[in-house]
Amino acid sequence: MHLTVYLAGQIHDDWRQKLKEQASEKQLPIDFVGPMENHDRSDNIGEEILGEQPGPVFKDDAASQMNNLRTRVLMNKSDVVLALFGEKYKQWNSAMDAGMALALDKPLILVRPEPLHHPLKELSQKAQVTVETADQALEALAYIFDKE
Amino acid sequence: MHLTVYLAGQIHDDWRQKLKEQASEKQLPIDFVGPMENHDRSDNIGEEILGEQPGPVFKDDAASQMNNLRTRVLMNKSDVVLALFGEKYKQWNSAMDAGMALALDKPLILVRPEPLHHPLKELSQKAQVTVETADQALEALAYIFDKE
Amino acid sequence: MHLTVYLAGQIHDDWRQKLKEQASEKQLPIDFVGPMENHDRSDNIGEEILGEQPGPVFKDDAASQMNNLRTRVLMNKSDVVLALFGEKYKQWNSAMDAGMALALDKPLILVRPEPLHHPLKELSQKAQVTVETADQALEALAYIFDKE
Amino acid sequence: MHLTVYLAGQIHDDWRQKLKEQASEKQLPIDFVGPMENHDRSDNIGEEILGEQPGPVFKDDAASQMNNLRTRVLMNKSDVVLALFGEKYKQWNSAMDAGMALALDKPLILVRPEPLHHPLKELSQKAQVTVETADQALEALAYIFDKE
Amino acid sequence: MHLTVYLAGQIHDDWRQKLKEQASEKQLPIDFVGPMENHDRSDNIGEEILGEQPGPVFKDDAASQMNNLRTRVLMNKSDVVLALFGEKYKQWNSAMDAGMALALDKPLILVRPEPLHHPLKELSQKAQVTVETADQALEALAYIFDKE
Amino acid sequence: MHLTVYLAGQIHDDWRQKLKEQASEKQLPIDFVGPMENHDRSDNIGEEILGEQPGPVFKDDAASQMNNLRTRVLMNKSDVVLALFGEKYKQWNSAMDAGMALALDKPLILVRPEPLHHPLKELSQKAQVTVETADQALEALAYIFDKE
Amino acid sequence: MHLTVYLAGQIHDDWRQKLKEQASEKQLPIDFVGPMENHDRSDNIGEEILGEQPGPVFKDDAASQMNNLRTRVLMNKSDVVLALFGEKYKQWNSAMDAGMALALDKPLILVRPEPLHHPLKELSQKAQVTVETADQALEALAYIFDKE
Amino acid sequence: MHLTVYLAGQIHDDWRQKLKEQASEKQLPIDFVGPMENHDRSDNIGEEILGEQPGPVFKDDAASQMNNLRTRVLMNKSDVVLALFGEKYKQWNSAMDAGMALALDKPLILVRPEPLHHPLKELSQKAQVTVETADQALEALAYIFDKE
Repeated sequence: MHLTVYLAGQIHDDWRQKLKEQASEKQLPIDFVGPMENHDRSDNIGEEILGEQPGPVFKDDAASQMNNLRTRVLMNKSDVVLALFGEKYKQWNSAMDAGMALALDKPLILVRPEPLHHPLKELSQKAQVTVETADQALEALAYIFDKE
Repeated sequence: MHLTVYLAGQIHDDWRQKLKEQASEKQLPIDFVGPMENHDRSDNIGEEILGEQPGPVFKDDAASQMNNLRTRVLMNKSDVVLALFGEKYKQWNSAMDAGMALALDKPLILVRPEPLHHPLKELSQKAQVTVETADQALEALAYIFDKE
Repeated sequence: MHLTVYLAGQIHDDWRQKLKEQASEKQLPIDFVGPMENHDRSDNIGEEILGEQPGPVFKDDAASQMNNLRTRVLMNKSDVVLALFGEKYKQWNSAMDAGMALALDKPLILVRPEPLHHPLKELSQKAQVTVETADQALEALAYIFDKE
Repeated sequence: MHLTVYLAGQIHDDWRQKLKEQASEKQLPIDFVGPMENHDRSDNIGEEILGEQPGPVFKDDAASQMNNLRTRVLMNKSDVVLALFGEKYKQWNSAMDAGMALALDKPLILVRPEPLHHPLKELSQKAQVTVETADQALEALAYIFDKE
Repeated sequence: MHLTVYLAGQIHDDWRQKLKEQASEKQLPIDFVGPMENHDRSDNIGEEILGEQPGPVFKDDAASQMNNLRTRVLMNKSDVVLALFGEKYKQWNSAMDAGMALALDKPLILVRPEPLHHPLKELSQKAQVTVETADQALEALAYIFDKE
Repeated sequence: MHLTVYLAGQIHDDWRQKLKEQASEKQLPIDFVGPMENHDRSDNIGEEILGEQPGPVFKDDAASQMNNLRTRVLMNKSDVVLALFGEKYKQWNSAMDAGMALALDKPLILVRPEPLHHPLKELSQKAQVTVETADQALEALAYIFDKE
Repeated sequence: MHLTVYLAGQIHDDWRQKLKEQASEKQLPIDFVGPMENHDRSDNIGEEILGEQPGPVFKDDAASQMNNLRTRVLMNKSDVVLALFGEKYKQWNSAMDAGMALALDKPLILVRPEPLHHPLKELSQKAQVTVETADQALEALAYIFDKE
Repeated sequence: MHLTVYLAGQIHDDWRQKLKEQASEKQLPIDFVGPMENHDRSDNIGEEILGEQPGPVFKDDAASQMNNLRTRVLMNKSDVVLALFGEKYKQWNSAMDAGMALALDKPLILVRPEPLHHPLKELSQKAQVTVETADQALEALAYIFDKE
């Protein structure tokens, strides 16, 4: 038994790296996948491939094509989706990813600090698991494999 | 031919009422449905039905049950989902609703002012239609019925 | 907007009749459907149609064909499934019906007295709404239609 | 050809262990998965990960999140679901799991002693196979691989 | 509540007509649909629409296009599929229709005289209901609507 | 029994109008839907709703949003898709619509003159029915309703 | 790229063995699976596992449970279904298997001698490929892997 | 993580070979699959397997069976579909393949030179990614694996 977990959420710090290291220490048979974490490259990937676009809306649309291709292919390959929300940023991508995971019937683990419980209450109620930290999410994933 | 359209988005002003009136003037055969727009009732509906809960997280969870039941039943009945984003509020519910619409393969119309194009670029790229105002969304809906 | 609600649960008292009367008083646009409530007929329907069977297991199997046909056709037609558990009876049918509603992605309302929370905790966590009385379930259904 | 089989049912004795040993003796290419069998840990896993909750209902709800995550991920990975019912315990989880297997179109093997045939008659009629003992269930699984 | 029932099976006698009359006498809210019952027209419909074909295999292929269009459209509209087998004819169409109903998750009622139980044993075991006569099938359908 | 049929294909002549008139003469209970047939409006609808775009590719993209919304909503409502190919125009839209109908498991009627049989051979082989003229397609639709 | 092919059809001669040998000679990367080919064991498997049943109908029902479990698990694992019809036997199982393959959207290869074209015309028209011999079916499978 | 990509499009030059070589140079973990690229064999495969047919329409129909079997099996195995359109040929197969990919919810990469933007505007708007050259498509695929 081997699991693939998609890590949705902001790409401004190294929370994914920490999670992977912890999972590695626990020797969990999990592959983690996720979006491009280099923020500038994520914003520029459309023009990198297609060349200059006629303005910022079109530049963004070109980049989104590529980012959405990546998310979609990797989410299709995943057994579980983990979506982490923090106190900064709009994070609408994360909420959209979470909504897609729900409707695709992929089990969703929502990670959010308690002060965000109110704006995320509907999402939390629909998630399979809601926790407050990435560490707790990893414990929930580890529990899938525990023998006793 | 008759359509049902779910109106996702913030519930702090009367944009849904205006949209319905315009559709009525144009005599479009569309039923609009959506979330509870009385904000206080939406927040309190859990305790209204289940009685007092042991704190704000649990109060929110109780309310979300009821709001999610409503959204889910009505979205299942809908042919199109319209999600409106404005410059205020976190609107994670709207993004989750949009994500669910996408994954349920319900055509999605995204309405957002141009200054929001960057944080919504992935959602926009996946929507069937992206426009800037609710009026434009209504024109897109009207076009479905136009003979010439 | 009109809803059809399947009422799963024991057939030993008239809780469905009361629920229908209350819904009628509130003028809710809901049709309620459910299993055969005449307990003897439900047990005998196999032999009523197919003639005598070679023992009680086969009699039960014959009856179940007919009861399952009814449940399946009516659940397919439903927008919401309500499953009520009481303190008596094994009610494995109710749990199976609830499990099928979950997997068919029909919104599920679980009704159970608080003393049953422990054995039903996994089912409750997966239901869209969990309440303690049929009255509360009806309030949750009514909320789908409320304008304010 | 290799199969994964989810073992739903009570976690109060070691029936799963015996089944695995028999399958191993027969050299069947089957991986068995299932719920956490340490009953106390299964009840406490919510508070173990999330900390103390405000009462037994909320403690149960927290634990169920984790148990349901495990069941759902493992059932998604399974080719067959085996649900065993015994004469003790309410076993509503087992019935819910069986119902979900049916609706997910996973082949279901129901194991129940003959005295339980009446309350389980509808479930039996919908299962792909109904047998009385875990040994018989294993023979049915072995038959999938038999050459003659 | 209104049901549509597709009547699969041989088209060499008037069993469908009798069934409809009985349903009409019982005032059941059921619409019955089915294949073209004029056997010659069913065989010739391909050449009737497309003109002469280069031999009997191609004539049959042309006719099958039209018959399959009809079956498929009408089966999509149906809530239940009834498949009747008699002692004459190969009836592979009926078995194919029954298989499609099963896989489309349409409840299937199998009608077959007892002497045919052996060659139809797998189909019977997968049907929702198996009976011996069309009259019994109608009783099973009527039971869906019975109040007591 | 009432059917909705989506008419895919070129919008440069009035073949849809003729088909509707013939169906009306035959009193067939069929509603026909389809794309915007006013070619200029179809090309300009993006700029009509969203205002001027920064070049022809972007103008086309804006128009496609609206045309695809229309097609998707109407195809979702349809029981059958009819795709007509003629000797002129690229008609890639028609082929895409046909491909979507196939994968959505909507019965597809392909109409094409015999000289086009080679480039359309794979599409023809996957269609439910292939005919040469719109008149023949209408006969195939009429056959669904014929009593004898 | 590796394929699994389910071989549906009669179990009275060794056509499957011959097909496997030919595929092996051609070094095709295909695993073939199928029903129990020992006819007596297939008929007796229900009583072998469950003990004596109260008559031939019930014996058949018990056996069918086991045979259907096997078919269903193996067909779920398959990429292609091949159904062979011969001039003898009723072969309703084969037609049911073919119908299920069609509705599960598994590509179906129908093998039948030309004299059977008429009774199998609807099934042929729905199959992905129709050929007259098992050898031809194997050529069609080999073509999937051919480079030139 | 390993991906399979189906390459739809014309088979008159060696664009697939070049793409594979480039992917190989970049050491991308991608398997490319696609139609038979030997054009004559693709046209004759029906008669090669089934023998001579009674005319070109029937020869084409026989060939299409085999080509469609190949496409369908390989597209089912794919994670992404790439459809390339050039300035020559009708390419209706490519458009049908693209439509099927869309409706099967396989991410679609559309490759077309800018002069074709108008006739392909609806397809482009529905594709996950639209680019102008096969090189750009490969960059988009490579981005799925990029770490930074």
